[in-house]
Amino acid sequence: MKIIVDAMGGDHAPQAPVEASVRAAGELGIDIVLVGDTPVIEKELSKYKYPKERITIAHAPDVISNHEEPAKAVRHKKGASVVVAAGMLKRGEGDAMLSMGNTGALLAAGLLIVGRIKGIVRPALATILPTAKGPKLLIDAGANTNCKPENLVQFGIMGSVYMENVHAAKTPTVGIISNGEEEGKGDELTKKAYPKMKQAPFNFIGNIEGRDVMEGTADVMVCDGFVGNVILKTVEGMGHVIGSMVKQLFTKNLKTKIGALFVMDGVKDFKRMMDYREYGGAPLLGTKRPVIKGHGSSDALAVFSAIKQAEKFVSTDVIKCIEDKIKYDIMEENNNA
Amino acid sequence: MKIIVDAMGGDHAPQAPVEASVRAAGELGIDIVLVGDTPVIEKELSKYKYPKERITIAHAPDVISNHEEPAKAVRHKKGASVVVAAGMLKRGEGDAMLSMGNTGALLAAGLLIVGRIKGIVRPALATILPTAKGPKLLIDAGANTNCKPENLVQFGIMGSVYMENVHAAKTPTVGIISNGEEEGKGDELTKKAYPKMKQAPFNFIGNIEGRDVMEGTADVMVCDGFVGNVILKTVEGMGHVIGSMVKQLFTKNLKTKIGALFVMDGVKDFKRMMDYREYGGAPLLGTKRPVIKGHGSSDALAVFSAIKQAEKFVSTDVIKCIEDKIKYDIMEENNNA
Repeated sequence: MKIIVDAMGGDHAPQAPVEASVRAAGELGIDIVLVGDTPVIEKELSKYKYPKERITIAHAPDVISNHEEPAKAVRHKKGASVVVAAGMLKRGEGDAMLSMGNTGALLAAGLLIVGRIKGIVRPALATILPTAKGPKLLIDAGANTNCKPENLVQFGIMGSVYMENVHAAKTPTVGIISNGEEEGKGDELTKKAYPKMKQAPFNFIGNIEGRDVMEGTADVMVCDGFVGNVILKTVEGMGHVIGSMVKQLFTKNLKTKIGALFVMDGVKDFKRMMDYREYGGAPLLGTKRPVIKGHGSSDALAVFSAIKQAEKFVSTDVIKCIEDKIKYDIMEENNNA
Repeated sequence: MKIIVDAMGGDHAPQAPVEASVRAAGELGIDIVLVGDTPVIEKELSKYKYPKERITIAHAPDVISNHEEPAKAVRHKKGASVVVAAGMLKRGEGDAMLSMGNTGALLAAGLLIVGRIKGIVRPALATILPTAKGPKLLIDAGANTNCKPENLVQFGIMGSVYMENVHAAKTPTVGIISNGEEEGKGDELTKKAYPKMKQAPFNFIGNIEGRDVMEGTADVMVCDGFVGNVILKTVEGMGHVIGSMVKQLFTKNLKTKIGALFVMDGVKDFKRMMDYREYGGAPLLGTKRPVIKGHGSSDALAVFSAIKQAEKFVSTDVIKCIEDKIKYDIMEENNNA
């Protein structure tokens, strides 16, 4: 298996992607293509010992920064690392790609270069949230600001397949995020989506509410990308605020510092559970080949987790399963029409 | 000053509203009308000593439960406590009303019985969130699922007045909750609202994101009631999940229990900061007289805080200020047209 890693994207590039790739090549026994400026990557690689035959470099002289207009940049910057990586993925010169760079550019590269699975109208960004009941999937976490009910149904299908294959969830439960549990609750989009979700080929449990998000009530939480982005960032922001408070709490004075020693292990467990770095990146679901968005602030551990996730994304055949389910869903719809 | 308290709404009625009213009559020196089933309230009141002249009862034999269709129930159940209370408020038999019961019924009673301020198209539910920078206002927290850009502008005006008067915020900052900071970001609603917010008579700071919610970036966070409901419940749910984890963390074994003793004070501060009971209820802004929704699970402390809040809502003349600003805003709009 070969994973294509954008070596130039993210706050800690190229150090974090290169270090993680070296670790992945050694520990996971997979091949890696690092995409980016060859001399820069070579210099970074020279710091490590690693199985030389497992890591290759694909030259890409440019980078798309976070301030560029994504679709335009993807169309015109042919030498950008994310564009080169997506081209390789499309041609089968790797089994999955991973980038920590500009999210919009990665989405655009996924759509325009890698291409959509036949039948999928809108690929969606899915993200794992660490809930009280373990890792659960939020989809769409920000790829599609304005959605139609049919899009939400497809998000449910794709999310359900992903959770079943990659997170071993048995007949994953799927809920629509709404402002009330009853079928009649919701905005125009979610109200129209509800009856369609009932017919869809997954385990639909109806509407869920904001309080269910971190309770982990549903394996797959479906919403449009506007709501998903707001939820994801609210949760991240609140995690950050509470983290700072807990730190303050324990470092206030000598007494609290002593107290901290007694509960250190538990605090570490807690931090680990809330740590996005353990959960890999956000898969873009609906493209013809696996594309993963790593967090922009990923360190080497986070990139390593995302490479492991890419490996599982490929080995569990998520895309083939989505293709099959979508075919079935469209067939059913035509039969009912 | 006289506050009208629905004695029958909420999980801990009539105990919590009655206990809180007794405390408020004594400590705050205000008059209270308890609305509900007279014998039930009398029995509850008999448990306390209080200044008799300060607390009266208005009989209301019925209750609107959480399972009833709100607008219909408000129209037909003339003897329901929330309906009787709203009628009294409309007739000026009290200066503000407070209910911990069915949210939809309170909103309907506010709209249909108390009535809107002239010029306000949609009253909105506003809620205080305890952020890293102190209490901030989220509006609309759930009254209006589908909104127009003009509604968001009015939410900004009303929220701004409320924060200035009740929370002493100086020229409160107002942001639209969106999926990106730049002006071009957002769904159809927020994109259209942005240029209108720039013209509005408040301190508009542009789009804010989910991560800003608990950071407290803006004094007033504006969104439609669907998004607001999801945010509010996500934050509440996450608070609950983290609260349980912290409890588990400290009660795991003898060692952690000892640790807990050392940091107890800090944990208490932290809990107090996150405790909605300290922040009163959610004001319904845009009605002709002050209406406050208390949390359904309010205990006596929470109801007492909400009564204090009602007292401040009245004494700081929030409604008069909203009326003035709305008149000015409509005048400006006509001038520009």
